Amino acid sequence: MSIFSFETDPALASDPVFDLHRRGKMAISCTVPLNSRDDLSKAYTPGVARVCEAIAETPELAADYTWSGNVVAVVTDGSAVLGLGNIGPKAAMPVMEGKAVLFKQFGGVDAVPICLDTQDTEAIVATVKALGPSFGGINLEDISAPRCFEIERRLDEALDIPVFHDDQHGTAVVVLAALRNAVTVLGRRFADLRVVISGAGAAGVAITNTLIAAGVPGANMIICDSRGIIHADRPGLTAEKAELAANTNVSMRTGGMREALIGADVLIGVSGGAIDEEALAGMAPGGIIFALANPTPEVHPSIAAKYAAIVATGRSDFPNQINNVLAFPGIFRGALDCRATTITDRMKVAAAEAIAEVVGEDLRPDTIVPSPLDPRVAPAVAAAVARAAELDGVARCVAAPATLAAAPVPA
Amino acid sequence: MSIFSFETDPALASDPVFDLHRRGKMAISCTVPLNSRDDLSKAYTPGVARVCEAIAETPELAADYTWSGNVVAVVTDGSAVLGLGNIGPKAAMPVMEGKAVLFKQFGGVDAVPICLDTQDTEAIVATVKALGPSFGGINLEDISAPRCFEIERRLDEALDIPVFHDDQHGTAVVVLAALRNAVTVLGRRFADLRVVISGAGAAGVAITNTLIAAGVPGANMIICDSRGIIHADRPGLTAEKAELAANTNVSMRTGGMREALIGADVLIGVSGGAIDEEALAGMAPGGIIFALANPTPEVHPSIAAKYAAIVATGRSDFPNQINNVLAFPGIFRGALDCRATTITDRMKVAAAEAIAEVVGEDLRPDTIVPSPLDPRVAPAVAAAVARAAELDGVARCVAAPATLAAAPVPA
Repeated sequence: MSIFSFETDPALASDPVFDLHRRGKMAISCTVPLNSRDDLSKAYTPGVARVCEAIAETPELAADYTWSGNVVAVVTDGSAVLGLGNIGPKAAMPVMEGKAVLFKQFGGVDAVPICLDTQDTEAIVATVKALGPSFGGINLEDISAPRCFEIERRLDEALDIPVFHDDQHGTAVVVLAALRNAVTVLGRRFADLRVVISGAGAAGVAITNTLIAAGVPGANMIICDSRGIIHADRPGLTAEKAELAANTNVSMRTGGMREALIGADVLIGVSGGAIDEEALAGMAPGGIIFALANPTPEVHPSIAAKYAAIVATGRSDFPNQINNVLAFPGIFRGALDCRATTITDRMKVAAAEAIAEVVGEDLRPDTIVPSPLDPRVAPAVAAAVARAAELDGVARCVAAPATLAAAPVPA
Repeated sequence: MSIFSFETDPALASDPVFDLHRRGKMAISCTVPLNSRDDLSKAYTPGVARVCEAIAETPELAADYTWSGNVVAVVTDGSAVLGLGNIGPKAAMPVMEGKAVLFKQFGGVDAVPICLDTQDTEAIVATVKALGPSFGGINLEDISAPRCFEIERRLDEALDIPVFHDDQHGTAVVVLAALRNAVTVLGRRFADLRVVISGAGAAGVAITNTLIAAGVPGANMIICDSRGIIHADRPGLTAEKAELAANTNVSMRTGGMREALIGADVLIGVSGGAIDEEALAGMAPGGIIFALANPTPEVHPSIAAKYAAIVATGRSDFPNQINNVLAFPGIFRGALDCRATTITDRMKVAAAEAIAEVVGEDLRPDTIVPSPLDPRVAPAVAAAVARAAELDGVARCVAAPATLAAAPVPA
């Protein structure tokens, strides 16, 4: 009767990845005793009614006396999953579960994967708004551009909890951290950098805006999409790309990646499109290449190293792995600990600085970011984010130092 | 800066119920190792992509290779919470969390509390439909009548996973189990019973329908709401109450509880409204009273015992506690194990029979149902439900006996 053919497929039965994923990667655990009638009467009826009544009177108590104060929904519509594209909500679940367990492992954040059976902007906004009271934060994930921009903006306006599209801001935070340390190693300054970004989706847009906010001159930045350099005269630009064009490339350079890279100090690839070695040859010497596409970088790091002094990828098998896991567990840990209502630019920059600072005296060309497994990262990011939230007036309480110190660390 | 006054309120600080609820009653746990780069590459990128691709090709694999096959959403709009009424989604969370941990403790079912920020039928249906791909089942909870009927029906039609409004069917299943055993103790037959139900909300409607399906003559049943006996000539009946009137009370009795109870063999209270001793005096001798309102039964069991041979309540401090926890963990365990697409009437009746049978040779007037803590209940219910699902052709696979046997039991 079973339709589950993998059960008997010897090839898959012997694949350690499928073995690991059997029954999923996470579970609910109960944190109170339920072994006696007295236990039940406290955790459930009739005792629970007293807690309900207290929350009905003072809704903010929900964050203290339910799990919701520590729970983030990891929400996707399955439209832009990793390097897989629009594979839909069911097939996106393994990635969302992976994200959820990373939240727990590195940030002590409980996270629930929510894969939505709609890719309609209005429906996604309405659904996530309705889910609001159940969670302490919303992590949007793998929702394709340009819908992701509107969805995040409208949810952030509608909800009094943090809403964070990780593909945009998580990526931008880690890139900013890496670029800050790379520039330090090279003795350069943000104000002098000529930066080219390959990719104008969620990550490309957020990185551009974040780097400009951090002091990289927009005038000297060039953004490329699959059609080449984005410039103000290019017909058919979306609203987001028109804004990119307005803020970058004042010299109105045109053409493709080769033209973009002439004289560039920094190349940041977040597109997945391969970049020719000949194009790299046009870069200014001694620069920086972040080839972040997964699993295949835009350029192999051994090639990139011929044209840049510092090279980073998204992969764990090369030095300088730029991975969002350095950012999102600590960012939400900090935001939840201070009951932030939103995640501000200052909080994102603080997270990037904290990540960069963890490297400390280990800073070298092949060590511009900490290891994704470094247990110091998430607590440092959380503390920095909570402090920034207080400065920006978006914290509803003071984060307890003990809570921050208690952030679990990998074994 | 903290607005959380309970932190320093000595009265609440010393309340063991609030103590227990601090930070909630549940957490996410990670079931795979995440301690090395190799671990990350299997649980997350790049390894996870292979699992995503397999599910994209064969969506049914999601139930095997993600946690969704074992996860139930416990969904409420906070409109009819326990004895508290319409307290809204945030204040409902402690009850939904309680339900979730009972699911885990007794059925090994992972359950996620979802408290919706809307009480609009269309919005609730749209939201839960969108959540469908994330879960293996939907447990609707504490949604007020009559909206609960339409919401359940439409979601059950729209989704290919079980949708179960526990206030209706969970209650009806446990009442049916208790009544079956009570009738056995008394040497009576369903076909001869004259039954009065106090309460025509979610529970009253479902109990009526279930008892009729189980062989209690509808003609001899009388349902009362806050306005008295429901009969076909009463003006202003809702659709659900008109249907109740059509299926019950053929003698067209009118009046209040006192008139309803004249000659009755069984009184089932699911209303919360107190019932006078004088009204009980009109019952036929040697009958059955289930006074199930929580925390205050419709009639105190010591009074009820003067007019009935068997008395049950919803409370843990009296004999014969009729509590939904006897039903829902095992029902969903069984439904998930056989990948049921819905929960049929046969599955509900099978659940009731399994609960009744667990009592076995202990059957006595003060032991018509098992203890809510009895570890034999959920596995027995799960096995019966899965078998019934197969008979009804709504099972997508055969439930593994090992899975059933592995249902966790309280310590």
